[in-house]
Amino acid sequence: MTDQATGLQLRSTVRKDATLEVSLAEVPIPEPKPDEVLVRVEASPINPSDLGLMLAGADLATVKVSGSSENPVVTAHIPPAVFKGVAGRLDQSLAVGNEGAGVVVRAGSSDEARALEGKTVAILGGAMYAQFRAVKASQCLVLPEGTTPAQGASCFVNPLTALGMVETMRLEGHSALAHTAAASNLGQMLQKLCLKDGIELVNIVRSPEHVNLLRTSGAKHVVVSSGPTFMDDLTAAFVATGATLAFDAVGGGKLASQMLSCMEAAANRTAKEYSRYGSTKHKQVYIYGGLDRGPTELTRNFGMAWGIGGWLLTAFLMRVGPAAAQRLRERVAAEIQTTFASHYTKVVSLAEALRPEEIAVYGKQATGQKYLINPNKGL
Amino acid sequence: MTDQATGLQLRSTVRKDATLEVSLAEVPIPEPKPDEVLVRVEASPINPSDLGLMLAGADLATVKVSGSSENPVVTAHIPPAVFKGVAGRLDQSLAVGNEGAGVVVRAGSSDEARALEGKTVAILGGAMYAQFRAVKASQCLVLPEGTTPAQGASCFVNPLTALGMVETMRLEGHSALAHTAAASNLGQMLQKLCLKDGIELVNIVRSPEHVNLLRTSGAKHVVVSSGPTFMDDLTAAFVATGATLAFDAVGGGKLASQMLSCMEAAANRTAKEYSRYGSTKHKQVYIYGGLDRGPTELTRNFGMAWGIGGWLLTAFLMRVGPAAAQRLRERVAAEIQTTFASHYTKVVSLAEALRPEEIAVYGKQATGQKYLINPNKGL
Repeated sequence: MTDQATGLQLRSTVRKDATLEVSLAEVPIPEPKPDEVLVRVEASPINPSDLGLMLAGADLATVKVSGSSENPVVTAHIPPAVFKGVAGRLDQSLAVGNEGAGVVVRAGSSDEARALEGKTVAILGGAMYAQFRAVKASQCLVLPEGTTPAQGASCFVNPLTALGMVETMRLEGHSALAHTAAASNLGQMLQKLCLKDGIELVNIVRSPEHVNLLRTSGAKHVVVSSGPTFMDDLTAAFVATGATLAFDAVGGGKLASQMLSCMEAAANRTAKEYSRYGSTKHKQVYIYGGLDRGPTELTRNFGMAWGIGGWLLTAFLMRVGPAAAQRLRERVAAEIQTTFASHYTKVVSLAEALRPEEIAVYGKQATGQKYLINPNKGL
Repeated sequence: MTDQATGLQLRSTVRKDATLEVSLAEVPIPEPKPDEVLVRVEASPINPSDLGLMLAGADLATVKVSGSSENPVVTAHIPPAVFKGVAGRLDQSLAVGNEGAGVVVRAGSSDEARALEGKTVAILGGAMYAQFRAVKASQCLVLPEGTTPAQGASCFVNPLTALGMVETMRLEGHSALAHTAAASNLGQMLQKLCLKDGIELVNIVRSPEHVNLLRTSGAKHVVVSSGPTFMDDLTAAFVATGATLAFDAVGGGKLASQMLSCMEAAANRTAKEYSRYGSTKHKQVYIYGGLDRGPTELTRNFGMAWGIGGWLLTAFLMRVGPAAAQRLRERVAAEIQTTFASHYTKVVSLAEALRPEEIAVYGKQATGQKYLINPNKGL
């Protein structure tokens, strides 16, 4: 590659007139500093957290594409309610792509950097929707021999989130978990992790079609939130598992409140005497996603020992500290083809990722539709 | 008193037909065990937390009184929505009154008990709406010489709650506080405590009439939630104080969410760069009351570093442990006539407390209307 001077990089900009603009920039390939390596990125997933930065909440029905097929420019309108929330990034051309994997093609002069030459590594560094990315050698997670970049592309966001949920459960004194939107890629991964670690998991899915998907991942408890017996089923699952902690990807509506109510009902089913303030066992819901951007409604019929809060992977990693975080990363690398394996619907190039028909599919964040970008595909 | 064999005690019962019944029972005066003392109760406040147990959420418009004026029986209807929540106490005749003060009139044989003879003590023990109460000597908080039972009646619920709020602030790494329904007895006490301890406090009141009440307690930051500039005023108060923790007595509606939004706006006003997930400083609201029993609505426009939860005094005391709790109690006793002084609208006997015109006043939980029961008044 070394005779190439520039590479493509996906950029997202929000304009003052509430227009989103996504395009491919041709940027110089950086020379790695002594402690850095240059990675040829060959696989980077489109996660929900990437879509927030890339599409800025734009109305996907208004997507238009101009430019050539190799160098397309996507524009779309951002609704006023959303626009307020992205005012902080006006006219900044932002690089996108939280994580990915590729091959180290050049190394800085330090021993640590040179040791990585030719290795396949995974990176969490941002700006991964690009042909080349220079990163600190210390940021690279070396993948086990025989792992392809596509297999190692999703080493961080989903695996560390799943591990973070389990670690949070342990840190905060709970013994089992519940999870919503549980048929997602992350949800299936969490189920595999819980099976492996012997943790009981209550999976909550929106539609009966998703039950089988989770059953094939070995799920024992799957509850359908759209079903007529939801509250009874969920209470029964909480009685069976003792789960008093839930991670919620939905955010809006009544789901968080319903989980707390059912946890309380489960606790009271085994209570020995009347308590005016409800069960004393702390019941917690962490909202980590926003599939429903509407308000969260809490009925507060679950006693006084409860909490709801935001949960963010980066905040969790700060909380446990660098040594613990590194142990989690190493576990991911070791189990990247088993517990933490990801599955993708389609592999696209940077230019293909900007086709309206592809945006329409991955922009929906539908269960079972996950894209992988290979920034060097066809180049 | 020693020739008296029985004493009056207020009892509350919920019947299967959704009727509340409150009456005075004549109960034997207990003989104190070796480690116990018998207290003649002379003052016990009617706190919001007592009303929950005493009135069981009954519709006060349906209050009827039968029986004699010395031995009245109050009945009232409990609305169906509330009745579900009190199903655990059906047909149990429950004694009421969390806290109070009185004089030790008889002591058990232990040294600890006998040392209390004749002393004026405060007790948190339940069943205080009674002429006599036997309690463990270790449960008694001896009031400083010259303190009357009326002055010492409210040593626990409000003072320990105010201290608990400040301690929670310290334990969880915040540096200032916000408080809603701040013109309440508790709110004024919290303001006095914060002034004394040099803590910045943002007081949120519902009506402009309450501003002066707090100003006279020395309040610097008072924000009116019904005013047109509420959100701007609250944000400015959070910028001025740096408060990232609020205690909310209201519970329902949008107030908790508004506080988090304004804390986030205050944090972002001083932020140096755009952060996709909002400010990293944790923002917390604890709901400790339920003046509005309706659902809590969260808009989640306050980043990811936030939490809402229930806060209960007994859970807080468990959390800090017995030694810390005892230090807090001793501080209350020492400052019962200054920082932790309470004010009452009216002193009533047990029989007077069951008059419909009195229930109509104290049952409203209106700011500035607080009753004290003297179970031995006129007897």
